[in-house]
Amino acid sequence: MFHELQATPSTVHWGYFDAGLKPALRIKSGDIIRAEAVTHQAGDAPELMMDDAVRLLYSSIPEDDRNPGVHLMTGPIYVEDAQSGDMLEVRYLQMLPRFRYGTNLAAHWGLLYKEMGEKERVTIYKIDPDYNTARALYAYNFPGKYTVPGKITKRGTCTCEPALNGVRVPVRPHLGTAGVAPDAMGRVSTVPPGAHGGNIDNWRIGAGATMYYPVAVPGALFSIGDPHISQGDGEISGTAIEASLNVIFQIVLRKDFHFPSPLLETPDTWIVHGFDDDLDVAMKNAAKDMLHLLVDKHNLSQDDAYSLMSISSDFGVTQVVDGRQGVHCKMQRGIFPPKDTDEEI
Amino acid sequence: MFHELQATPSTVHWGYFDAGLKPALRIKSGDIIRAEAVTHQAGDAPELMMDDAVRLLYSSIPEDDRNPGVHLMTGPIYVEDAQSGDMLEVRYLQMLPRFRYGTNLAAHWGLLYKEMGEKERVTIYKIDPDYNTARALYAYNFPGKYTVPGKITKRGTCTCEPALNGVRVPVRPHLGTAGVAPDAMGRVSTVPPGAHGGNIDNWRIGAGATMYYPVAVPGALFSIGDPHISQGDGEISGTAIEASLNVIFQIVLRKDFHFPSPLLETPDTWIVHGFDDDLDVAMKNAAKDMLHLLVDKHNLSQDDAYSLMSISSDFGVTQVVDGRQGVHCKMQRGIFPPKDTDEEI
Repeated sequence: MFHELQATPSTVHWGYFDAGLKPALRIKSGDIIRAEAVTHQAGDAPELMMDDAVRLLYSSIPEDDRNPGVHLMTGPIYVEDAQSGDMLEVRYLQMLPRFRYGTNLAAHWGLLYKEMGEKERVTIYKIDPDYNTARALYAYNFPGKYTVPGKITKRGTCTCEPALNGVRVPVRPHLGTAGVAPDAMGRVSTVPPGAHGGNIDNWRIGAGATMYYPVAVPGALFSIGDPHISQGDGEISGTAIEASLNVIFQIVLRKDFHFPSPLLETPDTWIVHGFDDDLDVAMKNAAKDMLHLLVDKHNLSQDDAYSLMSISSDFGVTQVVDGRQGVHCKMQRGIFPPKDTDEEI
Repeated sequence: MFHELQATPSTVHWGYFDAGLKPALRIKSGDIIRAEAVTHQAGDAPELMMDDAVRLLYSSIPEDDRNPGVHLMTGPIYVEDAQSGDMLEVRYLQMLPRFRYGTNLAAHWGLLYKEMGEKERVTIYKIDPDYNTARALYAYNFPGKYTVPGKITKRGTCTCEPALNGVRVPVRPHLGTAGVAPDAMGRVSTVPPGAHGGNIDNWRIGAGATMYYPVAVPGALFSIGDPHISQGDGEISGTAIEASLNVIFQIVLRKDFHFPSPLLETPDTWIVHGFDDDLDVAMKNAAKDMLHLLVDKHNLSQDDAYSLMSISSDFGVTQVVDGRQGVHCKMQRGIFPPKDTDEEI
């Protein structure tokens, strides 16, 4: 079955996951959903990144109701029959920008905030759809400190300067934040990623990728938000190019396997995610989970899996700006022999 | 001019860089060298990874003269007119395996040594040259502890077991260790990488890549070693597939620019390297050096460079097993507009 899930004041929540939230949509395993993911940074260039529906979201959700995190989330989606211990397989089929514009904020939580003179700065980008690239339109220093999510910068209050003349970056639309509700009472911040998924900020979570999230509560309560059109591994300024996306995905409930952390499958790779406040620990967590995947799903011995990882799996720094930092480990799928059966993972 | 530099007892040094070493070869800027890089792990399968010339190296260099590091290095090469403050541009043109075999050691300095039951294990790989892949031949637990570099494992002292049945990994020959002599008295360990280059363990340092090393002493005194045929970012078991390589490279002395750390240029990317005992600090060092590159070489403002890095540069974990860990930052070259002049960097 196909569902439309527009982002309206009654289908979004701002800054949190919450297992107690009333579902915005109820679906069955196998259903396909077209959902709107709206960026929480549209206020950086309201004349370019807002329409009436987006403006309504910003005006109807009070600033003091956007917490403890920052991301404007669409959902949650209740998946019939989903239980703790299941995996939610989410096949991302299409991600299309809602507008041709996006914003990058060099934020006070960025890696080089001090080195940049404790300045927050916005750079606005425009997508050139013919070439699938983006280029900077203009930049300005953010007035004051960026503490309220969705703050709207009024035209004329900042000095716009030219930026990155002639540079074009590849557009790779993806969801910065998507995941299931954690098993907790009340609001859980959308900022730190974790077993539930959330703010993983891996730019490979785009169309053509499939994510597997461990379900923690009945119905899974899946939400999406924090849409990006470009990000590098590291996300060092604190944000990506943030831009609203319309997303089509299929949700399949999997009761036949379990994995302890959010698992990403692309046409060519398996990717596991490790998290921790310390990058060294995140690295080790990712290594342990890839070992787990190779032993559990590919039936390798621990010894074989360890050697294989050292000679062929690439570890990357997913992000260092979400409080809980991320390291991902990538394994090429093509190095394994064809399986004898048709079984999926 | 073209030079041959064979690895003989008088042209190698084991475990160290040393600014006081007598040059094995003297060249001029622009010269091309064909040099043999011999793995220090050939003893893991001596019948497959040694010939008479390699055996002679192992028998002529006493075990107690292989320190304080572990790598068997060929050189040093004295570059006429090179001075501290110059950059040594090394264009790697060809890297061909000397034999069809290589070894991966899961070592006691590996990331998951404790998790694997404090066991050291060798896996021997064979290259299939028609497909440019490698597959495991057999594996065995290392008897005792791997403390002496170049230890020769005698046939019959270990039980060889099959390994990684059907798995084939891509072969990407590269130098784990290559660099100039640091400005220091006496021996400097080859193990931790640094400004001089050394044990960077980035698998992209292969044929087609160009490295820029900051020269520290007169003549630069460049050496190569630690040849690999496959490694993943992270090198988590402590080693790659270690295998001797014959390497052709051109050395060009550059007095027209300076960079504070080893810089890698591939046909598609610029890559900078950050190092530190702590991965979080290595990450920050890599970020600062990429900022430096973009400001200094691409004439971006600091603000523009920072935004660009956040949205398009990918940070990876180079290795976590060399004492001083590594993070590299990759920037695509194609995102910049064509330069007006023919000048190189």
